[in-house]
Amino acid sequence: MEQEITSEALKSFFRKDLFAEFVGIELLEAGDGRATAKLQLKDHHRNGIGLVQGGAIFTLADLAFAAAVHSRGRIAVAIHCSVSYLKAVQGDFLLAEVQEVSCGPKIAVYTVRVTDSTGEVVSLFEGMAYRKKERWNP
Amino acid sequence: MEQEITSEALKSFFRKDLFAEFVGIELLEAGDGRATAKLQLKDHHRNGIGLVQGGAIFTLADLAFAAAVHSRGRIAVAIHCSVSYLKAVQGDFLLAEVQEVSCGPKIAVYTVRVTDSTGEVVSLFEGMAYRKKERWNP
Amino acid sequence: MEQEITSEALKSFFRKDLFAEFVGIELLEAGDGRATAKLQLKDHHRNGIGLVQGGAIFTLADLAFAAAVHSRGRIAVAIHCSVSYLKAVQGDFLLAEVQEVSCGPKIAVYTVRVTDSTGEVVSLFEGMAYRKKERWNP
Amino acid sequence: MEQEITSEALKSFFRKDLFAEFVGIELLEAGDGRATAKLQLKDHHRNGIGLVQGGAIFTLADLAFAAAVHSRGRIAVAIHCSVSYLKAVQGDFLLAEVQEVSCGPKIAVYTVRVTDSTGEVVSLFEGMAYRKKERWNP
Repeated sequence: MEQEITSEALKSFFRKDLFAEFVGIELLEAGDGRATAKLQLKDHHRNGIGLVQGGAIFTLADLAFAAAVHSRGRIAVAIHCSVSYLKAVQGDFLLAEVQEVSCGPKIAVYTVRVTDSTGEVVSLFEGMAYRKKERWNP
Repeated sequence: MEQEITSEALKSFFRKDLFAEFVGIELLEAGDGRATAKLQLKDHHRNGIGLVQGGAIFTLADLAFAAAVHSRGRIAVAIHCSVSYLKAVQGDFLLAEVQEVSCGPKIAVYTVRVTDSTGEVVSLFEGMAYRKKERWNP
Repeated sequence: MEQEITSEALKSFFRKDLFAEFVGIELLEAGDGRATAKLQLKDHHRNGIGLVQGGAIFTLADLAFAAAVHSRGRIAVAIHCSVSYLKAVQGDFLLAEVQEVSCGPKIAVYTVRVTDSTGEVVSLFEGMAYRKKERWNP
Repeated sequence: MEQEITSEALKSFFRKDLFAEFVGIELLEAGDGRATAKLQLKDHHRNGIGLVQGGAIFTLADLAFAAAVHSRGRIAVAIHCSVSYLKAVQGDFLLAEVQEVSCGPKIAVYTVRVTDSTGEVVSLFEGMAYRKKERWNP
């Protein structure tokens, strides 16, 4: 039986993710195969025609996915991620909420819904991770 | 017959992509369904365990994909992207090189190989775009 | 406001899908953006080492996805599908259940969970369709 | 150094794939990380509106992918596959040709181009496999 990691430990660890911090992503909570992260939108998240850049949406979802899989207590590396863009973002923030599909001994799969401030789903992300044998001690 | 966009016009336009500029991505060349982009790696591209963050790799490949599809002369929006992570990055820069698979009247598909400074492929990206009817005038 | 298609009309139409019938897939119900399909497993669904072949699992999920998107009343074509294999199948049948993520004017996205007779999720499928302007009259 | 498997041994083994045989797929050649497979199209490969069914295209590409990864000499299981549909099939057969992107100690990735009898690419398939430690003796 593996030990779960607390939300505080996960949040503390993911604050050391320099790229997520650089982009401005905040991990709101994590644990038990789930996670929620937020991105307050600023000008530097936009592309050449003023839309929220796909890389910013991906990075938000990816961080939430990483937190969810690490809540299961073992080191994991992403091996495949996909993102579907469903509609243009409205409002000034994005929320990513993770759902665990399967957490097997080696392979784990999560889906992440990204919603904007109107509550609409703007992107669907799916992440597959390879779980190593080592326990993870944040 | 649609008019192609020059590499200079593409590079000039994508310098207005504020997120790509914020991340530090440089479009080296683009045109004729192809593109090459580079990311000089810095500390802020790394995650909590010192590896290059997946979101940074994705954003690099995504920008190259966007440049390649826009070289075909019409406005396009990404609808689905995926990335496979093949090995850990070595060295201090990443290169993304795009190959056009298919550019149909509505749907276009590109693959992007991301290599590190040792020349090894570290990620494979696939992007699908929906092409609008409007011509694109950068 | 688009008119929904009844479950009977959908089941009747998808019985004309010769490949799904050849494989042995049965559409149990469909409507309102959802669908459920079943595959009774036989020897000819297995690969060279006796496992249920990935193509059989894909085809089951794909038919359920097609029924769900057509329940929304317009002709649609699949443009991108993915499948994650989570664990080996046990027992003698598979069920595919569709969830609608987003049904926009042009692009629609659905996820499909495939479970075996023990109730475990063995595969996660995601399908993206391009919706045409034409109404669909089954 | 791992021993490669010959094309004859691969073809002989994949003839035991009952689902691929049922569907009508023929492995033309395989070895050295590559493979080519063919599907002669018949009525039972079509869907309710007469188009080649996505599941038939997927199954063809998937078999070619499986042969390519097994040519590397170790047992492997597919963990994630995706397929993009680029245009409607013309003519009476499909060819799937595999390209190896990366074959690491645990994870291997291949792309497969499916062309129709006019030579046009109709689908792009990407497959990721998890390679087991066991040698594969066909």
